[in-house]
Amino acid sequence: MFNDLKERVLRANLQLPKYGLVTFTWGNVSEIDRDRGVIAIKPSGVEYDVMNVNDIVIVDLYGNRIEGDLNPSSDTATHLELYKAFKGIGGIVHTHSRNATVWAQAGLDIPALGTTHADYFYGDVPCTRQLSNDEINIEYEKNTGLVIVETFSKNNLDPHAMPGVIIAGHAPFSWGKDAFDAVHNAVVLEEVAAMAISTRVINESIMINPALLDKHYNRKHGKNSYYGQK
Amino acid sequence: MFNDLKERVLRANLQLPKYGLVTFTWGNVSEIDRDRGVIAIKPSGVEYDVMNVNDIVIVDLYGNRIEGDLNPSSDTATHLELYKAFKGIGGIVHTHSRNATVWAQAGLDIPALGTTHADYFYGDVPCTRQLSNDEINIEYEKNTGLVIVETFSKNNLDPHAMPGVIIAGHAPFSWGKDAFDAVHNAVVLEEVAAMAISTRVINESIMINPALLDKHYNRKHGKNSYYGQK
Amino acid sequence: MFNDLKERVLRANLQLPKYGLVTFTWGNVSEIDRDRGVIAIKPSGVEYDVMNVNDIVIVDLYGNRIEGDLNPSSDTATHLELYKAFKGIGGIVHTHSRNATVWAQAGLDIPALGTTHADYFYGDVPCTRQLSNDEINIEYEKNTGLVIVETFSKNNLDPHAMPGVIIAGHAPFSWGKDAFDAVHNAVVLEEVAAMAISTRVINESIMINPALLDKHYNRKHGKNSYYGQK
Amino acid sequence: MFNDLKERVLRANLQLPKYGLVTFTWGNVSEIDRDRGVIAIKPSGVEYDVMNVNDIVIVDLYGNRIEGDLNPSSDTATHLELYKAFKGIGGIVHTHSRNATVWAQAGLDIPALGTTHADYFYGDVPCTRQLSNDEINIEYEKNTGLVIVETFSKNNLDPHAMPGVIIAGHAPFSWGKDAFDAVHNAVVLEEVAAMAISTRVINESIMINPALLDKHYNRKHGKNSYYGQK
Repeated sequence: MFNDLKERVLRANLQLPKYGLVTFTWGNVSEIDRDRGVIAIKPSGVEYDVMNVNDIVIVDLYGNRIEGDLNPSSDTATHLELYKAFKGIGGIVHTHSRNATVWAQAGLDIPALGTTHADYFYGDVPCTRQLSNDEINIEYEKNTGLVIVETFSKNNLDPHAMPGVIIAGHAPFSWGKDAFDAVHNAVVLEEVAAMAISTRVINESIMINPALLDKHYNRKHGKNSYYGQK
Repeated sequence: MFNDLKERVLRANLQLPKYGLVTFTWGNVSEIDRDRGVIAIKPSGVEYDVMNVNDIVIVDLYGNRIEGDLNPSSDTATHLELYKAFKGIGGIVHTHSRNATVWAQAGLDIPALGTTHADYFYGDVPCTRQLSNDEINIEYEKNTGLVIVETFSKNNLDPHAMPGVIIAGHAPFSWGKDAFDAVHNAVVLEEVAAMAISTRVINESIMINPALLDKHYNRKHGKNSYYGQK
Repeated sequence: MFNDLKERVLRANLQLPKYGLVTFTWGNVSEIDRDRGVIAIKPSGVEYDVMNVNDIVIVDLYGNRIEGDLNPSSDTATHLELYKAFKGIGGIVHTHSRNATVWAQAGLDIPALGTTHADYFYGDVPCTRQLSNDEINIEYEKNTGLVIVETFSKNNLDPHAMPGVIIAGHAPFSWGKDAFDAVHNAVVLEEVAAMAISTRVINESIMINPALLDKHYNRKHGKNSYYGQK
Repeated sequence: MFNDLKERVLRANLQLPKYGLVTFTWGNVSEIDRDRGVIAIKPSGVEYDVMNVNDIVIVDLYGNRIEGDLNPSSDTATHLELYKAFKGIGGIVHTHSRNATVWAQAGLDIPALGTTHADYFYGDVPCTRQLSNDEINIEYEKNTGLVIVETFSKNNLDPHAMPGVIIAGHAPFSWGKDAFDAVHNAVVLEEVAAMAISTRVINESIMINPALLDKHYNRKHGKNSYYGQK
């Protein structure tokens, strides 16, 4: 019944090792079918090289398993909160990719330092606040989603113009219009995180010129964009 | 009519992923045929693994499309300014290769620190000034070309002895006698940029001895060169 | 007689180059059969690409060779001390993987900075004290094992919750319930070591919130764990 | 007449790209036949993937070409000085491998920080002094060899216990009992150079305990060595 969706989510998950974003099983991709009210997501702790389409789990928006024999990703509750709060997004990725995770561990926003960043993320990629002990101890994964939503709401960020976040002490999440677009943004997030670390090594304080940030973001996005073939 | 030129430019573009210089579609190579007054360039936003020779776009020196169905690279206007100002060059490459981009983001020249650099670039690889907001907002890509030309003119640099540049807040351009030579220089620029970052980590101020810079540059270039088989 | 054990140990050793943990022969994996009182271990100085099952050496718990024509790894005495002191472990790995070795050379514990670390290592991965000159000059490899045991005993560490260590001035050891689990932990140790170096570059003092360390460690380990499919 | 020697030197040169030590043609390997008074060396500026056994050049100890149609490596005069001064060595490698070159550019010895280093290099890998302008302008490559020899003589270093060096502002040379052993040492030099950079990032001043340096060097070398199978 959900075969197409499961096929897509399988293929998007397999892009994570292809792009070097994961060690072992440390990542997961989901996609939502908003009309049918379900998401497809990677099963928990299954190796990428043995995963097949029937391992992909279908859950409803309350996290109940609808199809599949395996447990869904332990991060499913985080995905669900993001789908609920960010209406237009269609796919979500979580990884522990090395350089984005470094910024998360450092508890710092990934600063917008150049046009590579500006082409995809309209401003610094925000780092959430630390979760409180209560938020960690009870409904941790759900609270991880809620603190992301809080970060966007407090800073008045648009999830379409800022398709990623890093969780303090943890690792990145990214999203997009579908599962493949979310993986694409996860690759970019890792690349700009790596560039930003090395930039800070040779220049401690520089930031991108805001006019250049605007220019590059708008060259690729929105009604006046002119990059590509559309 | 332009098949040979398009074939060459296709092959030179495909060297970018081979040498690890690009993520997704973040790069482009062009070559000029000065006799016929045209350049061949990568189409905008097309993935390397599906690109074929008919996707390569031919434009005249005013940027008008002469052959091809796709939009040329959004950076075409930058390429055109460089071909106009730097008479002897035959090919141009733009990438967001990680380490050269780091120096661009830092807004710093890539310092000449050793013979690896001196074998190809006769002095520090210059970083342009920041563009003004007006230069960003109107004819941005053309102004990117003009600020490169200005940088070379102000610093009295010879584009043959300095076949590359970094744009403040953006990324590198390199060039050469043809498209393949330009890619070769892009690979070297990335490698010396990486070495220079790590060198600065362990030694904040050292520079190459100017006599050694002269020696290595002239060992490979000019009438008294003696490297290789010619 | 020990063919199954030798096969397993061969395969686990071959995972070291596969995961990029070794240069040349700089690593070794062993597994213990506690019922029969033997361990199987890589031969000393043999290249991975020519190693076969008959090269794997069987020694008893006193280090006497029981089966095999080659000398066992020169680090065998270290393995033996760890098997004797840490009753529940079944496999041990030693490598000079780049980033874990960097922390060993620096003489510093690998700090717990995020959940990637917390998922496997319950706290900072300890660095042993320097060996004394006497410990180096007489029974060096045995003393390497003893200083590991001393480090765990002094700091009241549980080898099951802390399946790795770094030796001051030397390199890491890791272990697990069998040889493959030990290799798995060696991969993680290298990854968290790399992340921790870069984290220290952009944030000199941050540590993980202890509640988050608890949460992630217990999410994967122990009776209330809920990661994966069991 | 020199086919065996040329075959060996070809194969050793092809190991440089295999081990990731070279970009383009930036490296060369030679081997000496002391009985016949000749060395075989890579031709200058020839790409590794088109090089064949007949491209390898035979020169005598004065640098005269004995066999082969191509120019020998422009670094041949450096190789010759090393073979003359260091009697027991049989093969020499020059590369611009990234991390060893970083230390050369920084003008600093590669400090002995751990047992990975001590297993091969008995102490800090020395960096030569800068060449004078006269030494650069006249007989540069020969003077590069002479300054290496001077560095060893001044510091009372044994080329067997210290099979490598870095040239200030330039890059590394390494050597060994034959061409393959020299390549092996070039791989190790690059690895310990990389580890040493990162170690300095997290610990500015630590050095290896001299007793540990002795132990590891002597475990692998000399009459009381016990590593491996001999």
